[in-house]
Amino acid sequence: MEEKIRFMEEALREAEKALEMGEVPIGAVMVRQGEIIARGHNLRNTQKNPLRHAEIDVINEAAAIVGDWRLEDCVLYVTIEPCPMCAGAIVQARIPKVVFGARNSKAGCAGSVLDVLNEPKLNHQVEVEEGILAEEAGALMKRFFQRFRKNKKPEESLS
Amino acid sequence: MEEKIRFMEEALREAEKALEMGEVPIGAVMVRQGEIIARGHNLRNTQKNPLRHAEIDVINEAAAIVGDWRLEDCVLYVTIEPCPMCAGAIVQARIPKVVFGARNSKAGCAGSVLDVLNEPKLNHQVEVEEGILAEEAGALMKRFFQRFRKNKKPEESLS
Repeated sequence: MEEKIRFMEEALREAEKALEMGEVPIGAVMVRQGEIIARGHNLRNTQKNPLRHAEIDVINEAAAIVGDWRLEDCVLYVTIEPCPMCAGAIVQARIPKVVFGARNSKAGCAGSVLDVLNEPKLNHQVEVEEGILAEEAGALMKRFFQRFRKNKKPEESLS
Repeated sequence: MEEKIRFMEEALREAEKALEMGEVPIGAVMVRQGEIIARGHNLRNTQKNPLRHAEIDVINEAAAIVGDWRLEDCVLYVTIEPCPMCAGAIVQARIPKVVFGARNSKAGCAGSVLDVLNEPKLNHQVEVEEGILAEEAGALMKRFFQRFRKNKKPEESLS
């Protein structure tokens, strides 16, 4: 199996954990030298913390493992296009490449709303590959929002 | 003394702590119902963590105190215009107002490079007041970068 499919499947597994907890189902893994060094999923509601997006947790854990704020030999896999905060954190960490699944038309910052990952005025630009297992990533989101509409919990909005 | 000057002086005090540690001197405080509930300063190099900007630490602490990911009755004071990551975190936390000192022409996301704080396509917009003790905030940065140029430590760049 192609390596990036395998890594995105692991990110999707993380997203499923979020769904089971009633969180917006987004998952991520950080890959370094062909190995997953950090995994995470959205925990915003459970932890009552706006920073606990999958990407932020994974960057935090990877920095502790690498021992540097620069994650220059890492690739971030995430099921959904990153929001402004997470895209900004990816730039801050100097991550050279991000692979994501489905687009986020309401808050995505790899081109959907803004293009933080490739803003020429910032001092770091990120190679982006999109569409990997996009259908699976989108299906998880759809399941969450169908449930959300049924239960009417407005605090669990995506962005 | 006008209240916002007093709060920005506290943010500057935080920035001075960063300068003393050899960190880019940026400080922040979170104000709720007229009281400072969280303080923080940039710790990126010391903690070897790209997320440890002043604003992120202060949002993290404030969320733990408020017990919610929404900081809807808080005002964030920060000495320098927020970067993409921090501006995105401010939007995620639904903070209604940000007061900052000096602009950051290289990475500022309250209008200098991008305007994440007031992007109409996102689901939250932030009231921004700028220029409060801007000269003092800028002077601290200048002191840092003069020292930086002398010591040639490229890892301590601003953004």
